Amino acid sequence: MNLDTLNKLLESVADGRTSVTAARDLLKDLSVEDIGYAHIDHHRALRKGFPEVIYGEGKTAGQIDGIMEKMAAQEDIILVTRLDAEKAGFLLERHPNAEYHADARILLMAPGEIPEIGKGTIAVISAGTSDIPVAREAYLTAHAMGNRVETIWDVGVAGIHRLFAHKAVIDQANVLIVVAGMEGALPSVVAGLVNRPVIGVPTSIGYGVSLGGMTALFAMLNSCSSNVAVVNIDNGFGAGYLAAMMNRE
Amino acid sequence: MNLDTLNKLLESVADGRTSVTAARDLLKDLSVEDIGYAHIDHHRALRKGFPEVIYGEGKTAGQIDGIMEKMAAQEDIILVTRLDAEKAGFLLERHPNAEYHADARILLMAPGEIPEIGKGTIAVISAGTSDIPVAREAYLTAHAMGNRVETIWDVGVAGIHRLFAHKAVIDQANVLIVVAGMEGALPSVVAGLVNRPVIGVPTSIGYGVSLGGMTALFAMLNSCSSNVAVVNIDNGFGAGYLAAMMNRE
Amino acid sequence: MNLDTLNKLLESVADGRTSVTAARDLLKDLSVEDIGYAHIDHHRALRKGFPEVIYGEGKTAGQIDGIMEKMAAQEDIILVTRLDAEKAGFLLERHPNAEYHADARILLMAPGEIPEIGKGTIAVISAGTSDIPVAREAYLTAHAMGNRVETIWDVGVAGIHRLFAHKAVIDQANVLIVVAGMEGALPSVVAGLVNRPVIGVPTSIGYGVSLGGMTALFAMLNSCSSNVAVVNIDNGFGAGYLAAMMNRE
Amino acid sequence: MNLDTLNKLLESVADGRTSVTAARDLLKDLSVEDIGYAHIDHHRALRKGFPEVIYGEGKTAGQIDGIMEKMAAQEDIILVTRLDAEKAGFLLERHPNAEYHADARILLMAPGEIPEIGKGTIAVISAGTSDIPVAREAYLTAHAMGNRVETIWDVGVAGIHRLFAHKAVIDQANVLIVVAGMEGALPSVVAGLVNRPVIGVPTSIGYGVSLGGMTALFAMLNSCSSNVAVVNIDNGFGAGYLAAMMNRE
Amino acid sequence: MNLDTLNKLLESVADGRTSVTAARDLLKDLSVEDIGYAHIDHHRALRKGFPEVIYGEGKTAGQIDGIMEKMAAQEDIILVTRLDAEKAGFLLERHPNAEYHADARILLMAPGEIPEIGKGTIAVISAGTSDIPVAREAYLTAHAMGNRVETIWDVGVAGIHRLFAHKAVIDQANVLIVVAGMEGALPSVVAGLVNRPVIGVPTSIGYGVSLGGMTALFAMLNSCSSNVAVVNIDNGFGAGYLAAMMNRE
Amino acid sequence: MNLDTLNKLLESVADGRTSVTAARDLLKDLSVEDIGYAHIDHHRALRKGFPEVIYGEGKTAGQIDGIMEKMAAQEDIILVTRLDAEKAGFLLERHPNAEYHADARILLMAPGEIPEIGKGTIAVISAGTSDIPVAREAYLTAHAMGNRVETIWDVGVAGIHRLFAHKAVIDQANVLIVVAGMEGALPSVVAGLVNRPVIGVPTSIGYGVSLGGMTALFAMLNSCSSNVAVVNIDNGFGAGYLAAMMNRE
Amino acid sequence: MNLDTLNKLLESVADGRTSVTAARDLLKDLSVEDIGYAHIDHHRALRKGFPEVIYGEGKTAGQIDGIMEKMAAQEDIILVTRLDAEKAGFLLERHPNAEYHADARILLMAPGEIPEIGKGTIAVISAGTSDIPVAREAYLTAHAMGNRVETIWDVGVAGIHRLFAHKAVIDQANVLIVVAGMEGALPSVVAGLVNRPVIGVPTSIGYGVSLGGMTALFAMLNSCSSNVAVVNIDNGFGAGYLAAMMNRE
Amino acid sequence: MNLDTLNKLLESVADGRTSVTAARDLLKDLSVEDIGYAHIDHHRALRKGFPEVIYGEGKTAGQIDGIMEKMAAQEDIILVTRLDAEKAGFLLERHPNAEYHADARILLMAPGEIPEIGKGTIAVISAGTSDIPVAREAYLTAHAMGNRVETIWDVGVAGIHRLFAHKAVIDQANVLIVVAGMEGALPSVVAGLVNRPVIGVPTSIGYGVSLGGMTALFAMLNSCSSNVAVVNIDNGFGAGYLAAMMNRE
Repeated sequence: MNLDTLNKLLESVADGRTSVTAARDLLKDLSVEDIGYAHIDHHRALRKGFPEVIYGEGKTAGQIDGIMEKMAAQEDIILVTRLDAEKAGFLLERHPNAEYHADARILLMAPGEIPEIGKGTIAVISAGTSDIPVAREAYLTAHAMGNRVETIWDVGVAGIHRLFAHKAVIDQANVLIVVAGMEGALPSVVAGLVNRPVIGVPTSIGYGVSLGGMTALFAMLNSCSSNVAVVNIDNGFGAGYLAAMMNRE
Repeated sequence: MNLDTLNKLLESVADGRTSVTAARDLLKDLSVEDIGYAHIDHHRALRKGFPEVIYGEGKTAGQIDGIMEKMAAQEDIILVTRLDAEKAGFLLERHPNAEYHADARILLMAPGEIPEIGKGTIAVISAGTSDIPVAREAYLTAHAMGNRVETIWDVGVAGIHRLFAHKAVIDQANVLIVVAGMEGALPSVVAGLVNRPVIGVPTSIGYGVSLGGMTALFAMLNSCSSNVAVVNIDNGFGAGYLAAMMNRE
Repeated sequence: MNLDTLNKLLESVADGRTSVTAARDLLKDLSVEDIGYAHIDHHRALRKGFPEVIYGEGKTAGQIDGIMEKMAAQEDIILVTRLDAEKAGFLLERHPNAEYHADARILLMAPGEIPEIGKGTIAVISAGTSDIPVAREAYLTAHAMGNRVETIWDVGVAGIHRLFAHKAVIDQANVLIVVAGMEGALPSVVAGLVNRPVIGVPTSIGYGVSLGGMTALFAMLNSCSSNVAVVNIDNGFGAGYLAAMMNRE
Repeated sequence: MNLDTLNKLLESVADGRTSVTAARDLLKDLSVEDIGYAHIDHHRALRKGFPEVIYGEGKTAGQIDGIMEKMAAQEDIILVTRLDAEKAGFLLERHPNAEYHADARILLMAPGEIPEIGKGTIAVISAGTSDIPVAREAYLTAHAMGNRVETIWDVGVAGIHRLFAHKAVIDQANVLIVVAGMEGALPSVVAGLVNRPVIGVPTSIGYGVSLGGMTALFAMLNSCSSNVAVVNIDNGFGAGYLAAMMNRE
Repeated sequence: MNLDTLNKLLESVADGRTSVTAARDLLKDLSVEDIGYAHIDHHRALRKGFPEVIYGEGKTAGQIDGIMEKMAAQEDIILVTRLDAEKAGFLLERHPNAEYHADARILLMAPGEIPEIGKGTIAVISAGTSDIPVAREAYLTAHAMGNRVETIWDVGVAGIHRLFAHKAVIDQANVLIVVAGMEGALPSVVAGLVNRPVIGVPTSIGYGVSLGGMTALFAMLNSCSSNVAVVNIDNGFGAGYLAAMMNRE
Repeated sequence: MNLDTLNKLLESVADGRTSVTAARDLLKDLSVEDIGYAHIDHHRALRKGFPEVIYGEGKTAGQIDGIMEKMAAQEDIILVTRLDAEKAGFLLERHPNAEYHADARILLMAPGEIPEIGKGTIAVISAGTSDIPVAREAYLTAHAMGNRVETIWDVGVAGIHRLFAHKAVIDQANVLIVVAGMEGALPSVVAGLVNRPVIGVPTSIGYGVSLGGMTALFAMLNSCSSNVAVVNIDNGFGAGYLAAMMNRE
Repeated sequence: MNLDTLNKLLESVADGRTSVTAARDLLKDLSVEDIGYAHIDHHRALRKGFPEVIYGEGKTAGQIDGIMEKMAAQEDIILVTRLDAEKAGFLLERHPNAEYHADARILLMAPGEIPEIGKGTIAVISAGTSDIPVAREAYLTAHAMGNRVETIWDVGVAGIHRLFAHKAVIDQANVLIVVAGMEGALPSVVAGLVNRPVIGVPTSIGYGVSLGGMTALFAMLNSCSSNVAVVNIDNGFGAGYLAAMMNRE
Repeated sequence: MNLDTLNKLLESVADGRTSVTAARDLLKDLSVEDIGYAHIDHHRALRKGFPEVIYGEGKTAGQIDGIMEKMAAQEDIILVTRLDAEKAGFLLERHPNAEYHADARILLMAPGEIPEIGKGTIAVISAGTSDIPVAREAYLTAHAMGNRVETIWDVGVAGIHRLFAHKAVIDQANVLIVVAGMEGALPSVVAGLVNRPVIGVPTSIGYGVSLGGMTALFAMLNSCSSNVAVVNIDNGFGAGYLAAMMNRE
């Protein structure tokens, strides 16, 4: 339930279309609903403008299903991240209108077209082909939150003319998400070209002293470009979420 | 030189107030000026809306002075960060209109009042008293870049009612900078309360397994609140800079 | 054999109900019994008030069974931790009165109801749904050692009002166990609310720079609340055991 | 202000000895007092039974003095930890009734004899002579909080008969604090002897792969004795504080 | 070929029992034999008193077989370490007189009884039941090299009376190997009791901050007992080998 | 397309053998071709003298196939590294003239004999048998790039006379690649013998504190011989590539 | 003594200009001269084409002086690295023809102009002004070894147009040394532009997770450009030495 | 007091030369003497054949003096390690017959010539000149414990012919101590040459990824020579002590 739907409910009570009892039942768990293994924070959409997102790892398919059912009573859009294919299969059977994106390991349940509410464009750029799954997680999250998103894949610094070929998209973006593994150098270069915030997403792509993404992470945190903020390794979701926050009016 | 001053110069040439020769001399190093030990990127203010910032560590006072002189010919505002008191003394003698902020180790040279250009308020919050120097670096940077900035000091999670006492400032901020050492928990709590981007700044305050700020950094990167982006340890400057980027129209 | 059963045995010898020979056979391995691959410390229940707990990892099912048989001759309660489902299956066939808790990977053999001997209540709190297995290990251990235990699941700091909804349970607890992965911030917040010892249990839940629980561990060790003690990552057992020690008269 | 002094104040108001105005002035900052660089949590003594402790590192002597003055209006006992000799000198001049313990870097201000309120004895044990400063910090903290404390110095595991010579003190303690650097083995051995909680305090004593205390810390967290909880490296204060919490009725 | 067999061969040539040609063929690869994927160091037994030991990990079964065949022409005893069961099955078919010890992952080929050449007894002590496989690797290596070896299993420091029950064996040993995971404290305690060299072998047994054996390793390197030398994690072979070197006349 | 083929194409246009249209089609994607999931850098062979090499890890077999097809239109030699056997099977069916080297996980497609263009010999030396796969990756890469390559396997420092037996090959090499795991000492020793550049390749062979090759890497970076440069752990490809660069006229 | 001077000496003996006795005295320590605290490797210049370089750190000024005196009898050029100003002062008094370069901490003793023997140009590029001291160490070493060296300072990736301004120098270099701290991204970008070997030198410039240069080091080792080899952090000397090796005929 | 002096005392009592009272006073603290800040383990010389060694770091000069006085009543030889020059000055004034070795930071008090009791020779070998102080600590310790010790300095692997020049000393040693920083390769090479135990001592000499000696330590623990045992970084004392243990009859 977001501010909009809350307003509509209260107006509906005011003009008698909804009974007080019915409204009370809808609102009684508004703050938080305790279902034993989880406290569902229905208040979150009011407070933060987007409902709680379900982190799929470490939860059983049954637990996720239980949370989805409770949320479905209140929210339009439900997003499950870090969901493996097996759990996704179970959930798709019970929520046939959901869509599973295997590359990004995201399950998205949304009512038709998602209205665009972001004020500008978000650009998602990946350094390598192998970084695409994380970049796609960022793309889908920002998209689900109502943003126009452009993507540019495989433009790492070893052949820097590939990046410059996309200068137009880069220049007009309001927020940029740059996804890179290995030496994680791309966010520095991109951020040096623009005057907008750049969100660096290190990936675990690489071997040896890529250290599961630590090297890319640390490189981005040490960026000599000052307009780079960083999220956790492989955290495409967080980058998409943050970009949506920055792209609000 | 920013877009505004470039426009004015060209208009001045157009109506004859400035000779072509004089303008050429002003513009000839616009892209980049090579003074041996440094390439000064005069183009940066045009490209990024704010002139190059001088990182004081590892440069001699003489080198900083040389860079400042070249920049002063083109820019209104000059910012030197990570400047120790000794070098600051040397520079203040040669640039008497600059101001040195010893706690934040920042030297700021600005022509009177800095005009406010940010669209909203930036809140800077510190978890402890010992984190204030880093928080001040963020404050001064965002301020120098033309933003209204509010500050709240010493509201760490061990007495969480202290934080809630400042809920009004927190709720109305457009961007929030949260500075914390030790366990670095404050950004998660603050981000859980708002629907705006939060920039976490880990500090090196602590001992033992605070690991010089690594623990706070990693904690912030693992925040269970999704709207937290992170910068390097003790990087108050970067946080202020990024916040300014996000607070632009 | 604990102090109580030792007293009873000696009284039984004193009034002739038990022969000296029978008592000697029972007592001869009291200190420690060497069965080749293990020294069973029967003295432990006398010394520490609770019999040795069998750590299941790295032992074969046969070795565990052998130790259980020797212990069963002397002890009422037997606890096996870190036991995978396969070994548990083997052991349940041979010890049908035992109970296996798959989520907590604990096998518990106890004679009916366990008498309550703790002086107050122990509260076990988990930050996330994914942390429940570790929290359950703590719960079962404290329960097996004769304590009243209350549980609160999924009240992490990203929506801190969820925690405050349980203030009554938190306030009345004599010892608190707080289980959290990711940034590990919950113990600091809880400890700030109470004047009782809080045992922080970091979990390996998270990814990237959660570093398998190291970040949560270090965050807890750096807690700005002073009444937090910490155990090893995922060590729910140790937390339950320590809480029982603290909850004794 | 603790529960006791609050009761007395209210009784004094009730029977007219104190005016409402005077009481209001005393109580108006009870929750938290904002003095710019610090939020003083006067509520803490009510909530936690002991007033806020001032962490001296990273604060200027002037800041500490300011906080002490505000606290002195409300509290009997003031404790400053991690205070170097220079700042201590400044503070002793302004608070002549305080006492500075140079080895433990603690400044303690207390009105005469501190009444004993702990229910049993706390034992503080150090592995080596070089660990004594940290052990003394634990001792002074527990003492300041009203506990009977016994100490045993220099009984490390390389000559384990030294430890056994003190078995009587060890056996009768209600809580044990064991301070050790290098391989950090002593807490495991001590905890194996008793059925009470043991707080392990790793110290930074050692060289090479003692890693500034990390090895001792990790060893203690891996203790094969289950009744060991651990605090941060060199955190004698935290150990003393926790022990006091555990030693309350 | 060791000194003894070399002597015999030369005597046999001297008195005409062996032809020069035959001897030359036996000796021509004495220094080193290059078989493409390996240089077999036949000179080693002469130089070091024991033939090359084959490290099984990272070699194919075929490569190990090829090396064994070349060595069998010159050596009595062949030892293959870190050999998994599958490769062992392949090799046992081709070398039926070899024996595979699955717990220690060692394959040993020896002609009947191995003569005892060590001057005293080697004691191998394990802290826990789970450490036995590594301890067995040490035992088998020292045994294969001609030493009398005594073993004591599961006498960790959490119940230190278990260790003292074996004081006689400990006191009479010429060299001691102490195998321990988790906090790795046992070598320090044992070394404090004796005046002989102690070889500490850290194992990867444990979880969380046992860090795959790093904690035990570092603890042993920081031992406050000076007569502890250390080998790599899980390196039972190295410990057995070194002990044999120390136990020579 | 390299300089040679570009010259030929232009000559062919000049004398009318190739139409302008046909040449334009061949050249239009010369700089970079965007196929959605990848930007193929056809310009690379012109710029760097060798076409782009496909890094197989993290790409699907389909993606690799798509890239190979586009490249085949322009290049003679195609190299795919870090390719597992399953993907290789898929690709071999579609590119039957390619050859898969399972030990080195390399797929090489080359038109018959590769002409030798290097000015001297490259020597590839491995410390152990288990290091051969990485050494083979280096060998195949340098070979594919047109170099004469000599190999010496299994000459680690524990029997240093094995190395000296190959002094002739070592002395005459123009560039040396030395591959070693465990303590990574061999590059130092080899580099001490020659006056040519030595490329050290650490491998992940070892256990315990070999730390997946970090120890060998760090050892090589600390080499007391100054003519050692280092590449990432297990990066045989990079070593072969670099050696080819150094071996050019 | 190098090949050239050895030839001349022998010719001088052959035609009677030098007595056998005098030659013998000059040659008797040719292989190695033991002066107690050091073995001077006079053979090195013969073997490696350049005399031993004295690493100044950890040696007393007296020890360095002693080594210099022995070397001066045999060599033209003496290089001392990592020499602090105090020791340099002592040595300059005793070797007045030496020159001390304070920024690079190098003392160089050479007889007038050093003849150029390298076959091409070596380019030394630094990412920042603060990296210049390390870059200067590389420059001076390569220069002392007889190479033409070009330098480009302060062209980091945050303003990448600064780098492109120097494309001519970059394109014509035979070997490139790229010196960078912080995120260490510059070698990747430079290496992507050329077909020559690039030696990356990470510096300890930076703070927080620059980790004393580890981040730059790891980033360079993970370079997505294949023609990057890496030396130890701040090892300008090694880079210069290696570049000289690569630049030989 | 060692076995010898104890025998003499008891004989003296037996034949009436010493009164029972006098002997009792001498023997009453034999096990352990508690002087407040230290438990002096007089029993150690009986148990371990050498009196307790005083670790100077972290103890005040006064504490060391106090321990020395108590020990002097019972022991002939007193060794203080890790003693800085300032404390040594204080102690030399009060114990004029002691000798301070500044390079090794050792204070040794011994009655004239120390009798040789070791059965063979101990060789101490250093890789570099900068490693000599640690090597000297090993030398002095082994010497103080009654061993013949040979030393070879500065024979690192970059010029391996320097090592081979000392093959005679190496071959005849009973135990070898090899001291090396940087890549720590020397122990592997030496151990490959002999059939005796080699004690590797990593030093903190080096920079960058020498990581304060960790790289040398890990390299030695990964030695491909099996007869290498390792002690802590810079622990020359431990190596000398262990070598003495191994060199006993």
